[in-house]
Amino acid sequence: MALTLPTPAACIADFCLIPIGTPTASVSREIAEVQRLLKQSGLAYSMHSAGTTVEGSWDQVMRVIGQAHALLHEGGVVRIQSDIRVGSRIDKTQHFEDKVKAVEKILAEDTAA
Amino acid sequence: MALTLPTPAACIADFCLIPIGTPTASVSREIAEVQRLLKQSGLAYSMHSAGTTVEGSWDQVMRVIGQAHALLHEGGVVRIQSDIRVGSRIDKTQHFEDKVKAVEKILAEDTAA
Amino acid sequence: MALTLPTPAACIADFCLIPIGTPTASVSREIAEVQRLLKQSGLAYSMHSAGTTVEGSWDQVMRVIGQAHALLHEGGVVRIQSDIRVGSRIDKTQHFEDKVKAVEKILAEDTAA
Amino acid sequence: MALTLPTPAACIADFCLIPIGTPTASVSREIAEVQRLLKQSGLAYSMHSAGTTVEGSWDQVMRVIGQAHALLHEGGVVRIQSDIRVGSRIDKTQHFEDKVKAVEKILAEDTAA
Repeated sequence: MALTLPTPAACIADFCLIPIGTPTASVSREIAEVQRLLKQSGLAYSMHSAGTTVEGSWDQVMRVIGQAHALLHEGGVVRIQSDIRVGSRIDKTQHFEDKVKAVEKILAEDTAA
Repeated sequence: MALTLPTPAACIADFCLIPIGTPTASVSREIAEVQRLLKQSGLAYSMHSAGTTVEGSWDQVMRVIGQAHALLHEGGVVRIQSDIRVGSRIDKTQHFEDKVKAVEKILAEDTAA
Repeated sequence: MALTLPTPAACIADFCLIPIGTPTASVSREIAEVQRLLKQSGLAYSMHSAGTTVEGSWDQVMRVIGQAHALLHEGGVVRIQSDIRVGSRIDKTQHFEDKVKAVEKILAEDTAA
Repeated sequence: MALTLPTPAACIADFCLIPIGTPTASVSREIAEVQRLLKQSGLAYSMHSAGTTVEGSWDQVMRVIGQAHALLHEGGVVRIQSDIRVGSRIDKTQHFEDKVKAVEKILAEDTAA
């Protein structure tokens, strides 16, 4: 029965969270709050200009993103929309830094040739 | 302490799941499997050409999307990537059909005038 | 030389546009404006609760989504973020309704058996 | 008339491109090809583990992402799906590095206090 299936033991998610109906067009304050939450979570994460990448079990990762929504709601943001890109794979263990290294290794051969 | 925060009691998520490294460019079989899983879940959901919308508590919704990954992994898909758009709001209860109706109501006034 | 490559002759895009820094949490008025623009464009499109799907050449589709940003900026929205899921394929011509039909055909066999 | 509207003069887009129906679960080779294309484009860009951020005018940015699809199609990938997060704003000029700096400045005050 499918409903007893466990969620993936590992995943990498990248999320971009947007507060809606806030008085200003700046979202830096809200993003900073989310970074503090991620730091507390103990999960590996990395912020970039278009989102934050976080890795862990599916349940850990989705829980902390949900808590990020809850945290901003508590702070008065009435509506929040996130875009989450999440990947899971069973052929190998991969950390998010590995993905960039794999591409950079290929590109390095361009100049080495 | 932020880490004890509960995740949102309600959310609407729209996800687009993509199997990677499958022998063909068709993904219909995999999407059909996910639809069967959603049916079993008891959550309200609706498939469209670019994804599937599902609503429930944050934990319910993220659990069933994670189970969709697990289900396809069990069926032999080694790598899966999903794009999830998820929204939560605390100013009112909103179901996914309500969002379309709100826009259609505004557009109906165009012709009524 | 890669930079002279033409963009794809056909694509299907699904976009979810979010105004940032607006006074209210409702986005219905802005989405209605975008629907009017799409109607004028002459492209095939379909709104659902989590976005709008539109098809045409890559340049046509991306132009109309860019015009949607421009239209709302003109109306006073200072910042806009969109999530676009876009697909192109060269193995066959596919319209967005075809994707749902392909899945529904598989699911119909469940009850037919 | 909305259809004569120009697209935004500036935008920041972050895209995650996924080849579908490829023989392996690795996408590093395809992503490397896209990075070479971006380098040739002359636009400012930055790769991270969950995508690549690129900035320029709306038309320039969308054109290069479309060319990335075309390039991989030429190389034999029959189907490609991208997720694009794109933002435009008219209240100020912002480069993608500025967004990270704005958040880091707020976080720096945590330890400075």
